[in-house]
Amino acid sequence: MIAEIITIGDEILIGQTIDTNSAWLSQELNKLGVRVSRVTTVADEGEEIKKALTEAHSRVDLVIMTGGLGPTNDDITKITLTEYFQDELVLHDEVLEGINSYFTSKGKAMLPMNRDQALLPSEAKIVRNFKGTASGMWFEKQGKVAISMPGVPYEMKHLMVTGFLDMIAEYFETSSVFHFTVMTFGEGESFIADRIQDWERSLAQEDVKLAYLPSLGTVKMRLSAFGEDKSVLEEKVMRKAAELERLIPELVYGYNEETLSEVVGRLLFKNNRTIATAESCTGGYIAHLLTTVPGSSRYYEGSFCTYSYKSKSEILDVDAQMIIDQGAVSQDVVESMANGVFIHFDTDYSIAVSGIAGPEGGTEDKPVGTVWMSVGTKDKLVTKCYHFGRNRKNNIRMTAYTALNELRKQLLEL
Amino acid sequence: MIAEIITIGDEILIGQTIDTNSAWLSQELNKLGVRVSRVTTVADEGEEIKKALTEAHSRVDLVIMTGGLGPTNDDITKITLTEYFQDELVLHDEVLEGINSYFTSKGKAMLPMNRDQALLPSEAKIVRNFKGTASGMWFEKQGKVAISMPGVPYEMKHLMVTGFLDMIAEYFETSSVFHFTVMTFGEGESFIADRIQDWERSLAQEDVKLAYLPSLGTVKMRLSAFGEDKSVLEEKVMRKAAELERLIPELVYGYNEETLSEVVGRLLFKNNRTIATAESCTGGYIAHLLTTVPGSSRYYEGSFCTYSYKSKSEILDVDAQMIIDQGAVSQDVVESMANGVFIHFDTDYSIAVSGIAGPEGGTEDKPVGTVWMSVGTKDKLVTKCYHFGRNRKNNIRMTAYTALNELRKQLLEL
Repeated sequence: MIAEIITIGDEILIGQTIDTNSAWLSQELNKLGVRVSRVTTVADEGEEIKKALTEAHSRVDLVIMTGGLGPTNDDITKITLTEYFQDELVLHDEVLEGINSYFTSKGKAMLPMNRDQALLPSEAKIVRNFKGTASGMWFEKQGKVAISMPGVPYEMKHLMVTGFLDMIAEYFETSSVFHFTVMTFGEGESFIADRIQDWERSLAQEDVKLAYLPSLGTVKMRLSAFGEDKSVLEEKVMRKAAELERLIPELVYGYNEETLSEVVGRLLFKNNRTIATAESCTGGYIAHLLTTVPGSSRYYEGSFCTYSYKSKSEILDVDAQMIIDQGAVSQDVVESMANGVFIHFDTDYSIAVSGIAGPEGGTEDKPVGTVWMSVGTKDKLVTKCYHFGRNRKNNIRMTAYTALNELRKQLLEL
Repeated sequence: MIAEIITIGDEILIGQTIDTNSAWLSQELNKLGVRVSRVTTVADEGEEIKKALTEAHSRVDLVIMTGGLGPTNDDITKITLTEYFQDELVLHDEVLEGINSYFTSKGKAMLPMNRDQALLPSEAKIVRNFKGTASGMWFEKQGKVAISMPGVPYEMKHLMVTGFLDMIAEYFETSSVFHFTVMTFGEGESFIADRIQDWERSLAQEDVKLAYLPSLGTVKMRLSAFGEDKSVLEEKVMRKAAELERLIPELVYGYNEETLSEVVGRLLFKNNRTIATAESCTGGYIAHLLTTVPGSSRYYEGSFCTYSYKSKSEILDVDAQMIIDQGAVSQDVVESMANGVFIHFDTDYSIAVSGIAGPEGGTEDKPVGTVWMSVGTKDKLVTKCYHFGRNRKNNIRMTAYTALNELRKQLLEL
């Protein structure tokens, strides 16, 4: 079973908004055995929308559309689709009541333009939206289906989960697909590919597909199989994934979109260990990554962000003379920062980083991208110097990921 | 002048990667006066790529393609396009040398699969890639152009900036476009639309387009005009933007993708003021937002992330009995945290937040999403309680944005 997605919105075509809906939709459809073969983004223009829908329906039976359903005048999807399916708009009392109580719950009065959102095509199946005011619509014509939803991500997800996913599974016959992703950190894609050449060649005879998905510091390696019997697909993909992991054990940190902070959090919790951080160049980003994980209060105590010299010495008890002599970005200073964490937070583990994120602040012997990092326990701190790049945001992120990966290795005694 | 973008990659169609390239490309093309009318994402399959390119070239003269140029076996764009344009691959010595020195600079030996990346179509114009190993290619056929670049964002940007943008401007005659975006925080799109109805109606007679772009807490309002004379477009868009700002002055925090932390940073620097933060539920996210801005060390001193009760009282000197009596999420505790910041960092401004980010930790009188926040100077702290939602990540973000917006208002004496 194949579907296409059409995303409607000028804001995407001028690059002001990044389309995140298609990725989420594709994942959810995949779980149902529906493969997305194409995503098309078109402008908020009636003719463009109609053309894209006609083309998509010439290739597939299911088209999922997001965007252009807001209350404001630039949103024209509903009128366009009602015309396209030769239907007419009628007032849905139940939807009107829902919109009304949506505003009441927010302590606000309903506006006329929101009232118009209860005008809906008479023959479409409606999925009620309890997170906003634009309803979901399911159009049918000669076995071809078009679904239309608002572009606001949490409203779209709400409509899919409470209505459309079940409706799709019921209406269409779907086949099976199984994906598994091995998450790696610390090596580039061609070096990984070189190490696993023979194994990669062996995938063809099992009909398993491999994709390399590189991003900053990490390469995700996705294994996929398509077919009828889900358990057969799962068995061969998982067997191949285990073979892969035996070839590059030190690079694999997790599976299926797991983040380094989730993995580290799981290990800290399981081992009943605690952590706190002292951050200079990352400015709280390591703390943020750690605390993004639900339940992190069970192992995360807190952090010092000491951006200025003064705060490093006054708050973290780093010797002021040491900072002057060695510089804030130095082995002695990060080790002293790491020890300051133990003194104040009394945790099992400590992470301390100090570096030059850029774009300014570099010197000849310490160029932008130089980072000192100390990770470990009271008994054993591992301190290293890294040289990342010239981009401030990437330096912040690479420093944080590298620190979390070092902590992961220590927790696993690798 | 109109163009289309084709994004190639299974990873996008299964939702594992979000396509951020198209947004960046659209913005850059817009600046040249090239409007993107459609973005299509297709699989790493030769037939799909050819079909999408044929269709796109039937509508427009310029097609920009990203993805599928890596060294690994799943990348087939180069071979497909070489076939499509009836060309053949030849070894480019200069490119081979470049790839070689790319690996030398990383202290690694070149692999055979990277050597193959120097095989390029003989008639295509090549843009050298100094950030990676896949070259950019410019194909031409009967006045129709196709550009192919790797999908790794910083390599793609590098190729556009160092080569293709100029080549496009030279090859095509481009018309003018002017966009200006007014950034607002704190009110939903329909309430804004209601307040500016008459003004919005007045846009039609000036041929200025308005789009509402809502995301968490913010609504971006984009004004656009298309035509020949750029100065005419700019004059009318800027005049309309000034009118808009007069209608909703308290909501407007900036322009053209400016972030709250950039605006706050600019104001702190201009007024020669400093800031530090004490964060519980945001776990360093406010510090991270502040320090993402280059040059933030000029006004940002540091932060305490005090996640545990113990760290709040030991590090921030919050009375332990007060935490027991009032709870960590209370007016007295955040004010005490804010004062702890002044004591330790001696800054002009302080931000302190404590709340229940969720999904756990809520109680009947303090449900998930409850946040106390104290922002201000030693002489005047403004302390408020907010109720955000149930989503942990959104609560962290809304808390941080709201705190920064409160600081902005104080800095502007609003």
